[in-house]
Amino acid sequence: MDFISSIVIVLIAALIGRSLSKKIRQPTILGELIVGAFIGNIFLLINKEKLFFDDSINYLADIGILFLLFSAGLSLNLKEFKKIETSSTFVATLGVILPFILGYVTGLWFGFGHMAALFIGTSLTATSIGVNAEILIELRIMGTKLGSLIMGTAVVDDIIAMIILTILISIVKTGAIFIWEIGIFLILVLIFLLIAIILSKEKISLFLDSNLEKIKIRRENLLIVGIIVALTFSFFAESIGLSIIIGAFIAGIILGQLNFFRSLQDYVSLVGGGFFIPIFFVTVGMSFNFNAFLEIGLFASLLLIAAIVGKLIGCGLGAKITGFNNRDSLAAGVAMIPRAGIELVLVRLGLEYEIINEEIASAILVMVIITTLITPTALIKVLRK
Amino acid sequence: MDFISSIVIVLIAALIGRSLSKKIRQPTILGELIVGAFIGNIFLLINKEKLFFDDSINYLADIGILFLLFSAGLSLNLKEFKKIETSSTFVATLGVILPFILGYVTGLWFGFGHMAALFIGTSLTATSIGVNAEILIELRIMGTKLGSLIMGTAVVDDIIAMIILTILISIVKTGAIFIWEIGIFLILVLIFLLIAIILSKEKISLFLDSNLEKIKIRRENLLIVGIIVALTFSFFAESIGLSIIIGAFIAGIILGQLNFFRSLQDYVSLVGGGFFIPIFFVTVGMSFNFNAFLEIGLFASLLLIAAIVGKLIGCGLGAKITGFNNRDSLAAGVAMIPRAGIELVLVRLGLEYEIINEEIASAILVMVIITTLITPTALIKVLRK
Repeated sequence: MDFISSIVIVLIAALIGRSLSKKIRQPTILGELIVGAFIGNIFLLINKEKLFFDDSINYLADIGILFLLFSAGLSLNLKEFKKIETSSTFVATLGVILPFILGYVTGLWFGFGHMAALFIGTSLTATSIGVNAEILIELRIMGTKLGSLIMGTAVVDDIIAMIILTILISIVKTGAIFIWEIGIFLILVLIFLLIAIILSKEKISLFLDSNLEKIKIRRENLLIVGIIVALTFSFFAESIGLSIIIGAFIAGIILGQLNFFRSLQDYVSLVGGGFFIPIFFVTVGMSFNFNAFLEIGLFASLLLIAAIVGKLIGCGLGAKITGFNNRDSLAAGVAMIPRAGIELVLVRLGLEYEIINEEIASAILVMVIITTLITPTALIKVLRK
Repeated sequence: MDFISSIVIVLIAALIGRSLSKKIRQPTILGELIVGAFIGNIFLLINKEKLFFDDSINYLADIGILFLLFSAGLSLNLKEFKKIETSSTFVATLGVILPFILGYVTGLWFGFGHMAALFIGTSLTATSIGVNAEILIELRIMGTKLGSLIMGTAVVDDIIAMIILTILISIVKTGAIFIWEIGIFLILVLIFLLIAIILSKEKISLFLDSNLEKIKIRRENLLIVGIIVALTFSFFAESIGLSIIIGAFIAGIILGQLNFFRSLQDYVSLVGGGFFIPIFFVTVGMSFNFNAFLEIGLFASLLLIAAIVGKLIGCGLGAKITGFNNRDSLAAGVAMIPRAGIELVLVRLGLEYEIINEEIASAILVMVIITTLITPTALIKVLRK
């Protein structure tokens, strides 16, 4: 399908999804995901092959997730975010350990090898940050203490998951753990975060603002400057091995402190929400292959339960311990349920090196689909209480 | 170069170009084109090969020109546009005939064959509508009588050029003119324009608005609806053989009549001007290969003069005859000077069938570069009088 018709179809799907969501008072993202999945699978059913879109759609979707996280960063309340740093790290750590152990044990219990079980455990560790960000923005709680906890936890959990992934890859490829490589990764991450922390210091913000306040800039150019900063941070995040969206998120936090950029959030949310972000979620929905459900067995069901329970209890308990009330702890647990991101790397790598089989791969796929689809509704239910 | 760094470089180039333009009081587009050309050619000089960008950049640039023409359509004054229809057609016709004859004669004079001369003449017929649109928007004269004349002329001139191109292609490929094919093309264009005219009638607008006024829509969704309409018109324009940007322009005119969409122009200009459109102009600049100038000879110089004089006199005289004053007639002539679009089709086809040689191809290339680069400055000079 060509460039223009691909975009038109995806955008129409997004509009339909949004209006369905609104009718049943669900978050917009749920409708986008489901209509996307519906179109993708109907097409698959009729044509026996995947709906082929022009590559351009993937580029636009990638920009979409960057805009989403950039927007999340811009609307974050940095003071709350900093206050909650230790809690986030604690919650994230618990929320990685528990699902990892549950996944690992489930793998061993079903007679898969030690290495396959490690893969299964790892596939449950990292949260998909996009779903949360979208819902937190929609409900306007990105700037609250809870919003800060959820976003902070998602960032830390991405870092921990990348460390585990780095270890796994080095074992798979060389048979040994290279402390050296992991050490370098950690040092780079620390430098990256340190630069981000310095740039977001109040003194630096005031200094930057005092220099920028004389500059008159048109809104189009302000948007361009914002996008350049976001993409530059994404580039560096990717270069050191983090996800690019973490870079866009951090760029958002930094610019969000500056008076000069105070209209930026407004522009970014329009450009993102009115074009790129719905393309992202509809195409995510389209990538869900419901055929995987046909072979769903006991293993997939247990893996799914491990995924849900692991984050719910891991993060929920973590939040409770660090002093959040029941509703917020539950919300933090629910928000961490969706997975997507490193799983694709894991599945490809695992299949390539014959560490996992098709059954495990499709169980992970089912887990990704269901956790992503149930979260919006569950989270909005908890938050509306 | 990867996705993210490609976008970052192009956007930084756009910002630099814009601020240079502002300093020397030139239209923003000139700076974008020149900085783009500078980067592209410096890279070529150093690395002996073209700057390779990720494909995504071309997709974003294509969306950019669509946003630009959509925005132009939205800010057009339809009443003025309709009043001026006959004038536009007259001006466009004169502005196609004169350059065509000048190009044809120049070709014969230099001893090129009859067919090659036809190609050369055709390469001078179609105006590049993007440059004008950007400047008319920047100077806020899109809604004036002159703005309507310029845009109307550019649309009609595109249609005439497509007819000539269709004839040329059918001669080249089959050795004969297929009245049949040309007839079908014309009928399709008429149907397309008729639908556009009906949809933009005041009665229809009022009817649509009375149905839409009850609908509450968020700005993001309004933008999505607008983009869907623009892309759908582009799709049909392309299907019948017109340029896709004509479709986006017509979609803009139609939606511009509706109260429901009155904020759309604001959103489209932000999204376009703050991301897509600068990417378009910078990449156009990058595609300018200054090596072509090294071999510039008498033929290229004369072709360039034919290109400039042809439109300046053809359209300028046409505007004067239909009652415009000297300044506006001159502006209409200058606005039609830039070329780009069907030339690429012509050059590729001509080289492939060995109708034109490398000398003609690079002369056409030089003509495209120079006409595009001189127009912004010339037009702004005339309009500021």
